[in-house]
Amino acid sequence: MNDVEILLIEDNPEDVEITLRAFRKNNLTNKIHVVRDGEEALECLFSTGRYSEHSTCHQTRLILLDLKLPKVDGLEILQRCKADPRTKNIPVVVLTSSREEQDLIRSYNLGVNSYVVKPVDFPQFSDAVRQLGMYWILLNQIPAELPGQHQSQ
Amino acid sequence: MNDVEILLIEDNPEDVEITLRAFRKNNLTNKIHVVRDGEEALECLFSTGRYSEHSTCHQTRLILLDLKLPKVDGLEILQRCKADPRTKNIPVVVLTSSREEQDLIRSYNLGVNSYVVKPVDFPQFSDAVRQLGMYWILLNQIPAELPGQHQSQ
Repeated sequence: MNDVEILLIEDNPEDVEITLRAFRKNNLTNKIHVVRDGEEALECLFSTGRYSEHSTCHQTRLILLDLKLPKVDGLEILQRCKADPRTKNIPVVVLTSSREEQDLIRSYNLGVNSYVVKPVDFPQFSDAVRQLGMYWILLNQIPAELPGQHQSQ
Repeated sequence: MNDVEILLIEDNPEDVEITLRAFRKNNLTNKIHVVRDGEEALECLFSTGRYSEHSTCHQTRLILLDLKLPKVDGLEILQRCKADPRTKNIPVVVLTSSREEQDLIRSYNLGVNSYVVKPVDFPQFSDAVRQLGMYWILLNQIPAELPGQHQSQ
């Protein structure tokens, strides 16, 4: 598990499946780690709790974040990520079904890199995930070493 | 000029041409405003100087920013945008030929939304711009009304 590059934080099994399938088609799937609630996401990102022994997420180079999550809300995860020097430079893309203006405003105010509304239609959702993966993994550049990676390497 | 959605800040005429052509192919070109130095970019974004009478940029929903610019450097523009409540939520994509780790780190520390290195090869550059335009204009969502837009409407 040393090569996790995408952390998918999503509790809906169907959405997880669509996302993984779209990545798989584009050979991006081998480096995805899925967590299904907000508490586990924070433990993974900050190597605490059940991740204190094995820091699965220290190589994360993209976070796909649902907003409505069990235990800890997506906006709180975003806030914690962007406030911590170890994680603030990891691109966070909110991937949500919410078109609420308040969610958009709060996400941008917290420093989200991008906000994508899940298309309701399956092929469109799949295509959106494909585009998103290609853009953030292949086109976007991030620093070679993110601050949080010093600790665990 | 009320519908400027993309502000392209780029001094290299060839790169401007490639970018406009790639957008044109995808029907995204009618809403681009090009500025060729950093001073004009700031005037446009903050409705000062030669833009004090007509606030061309108050509808900007995406900034494409070169780093090496005459008069005011790209990183300073980024810093000014992200520090000002009127402009902080406008997505800024750095589009540069620099792969320097320091430029990447400084851009992310200043809150850049995304950082894309211009491919040297013409067709690849064109394709990168196409992908980038499709992603940020069609897939990414931003708040319906950005704070800076109150003033001028």
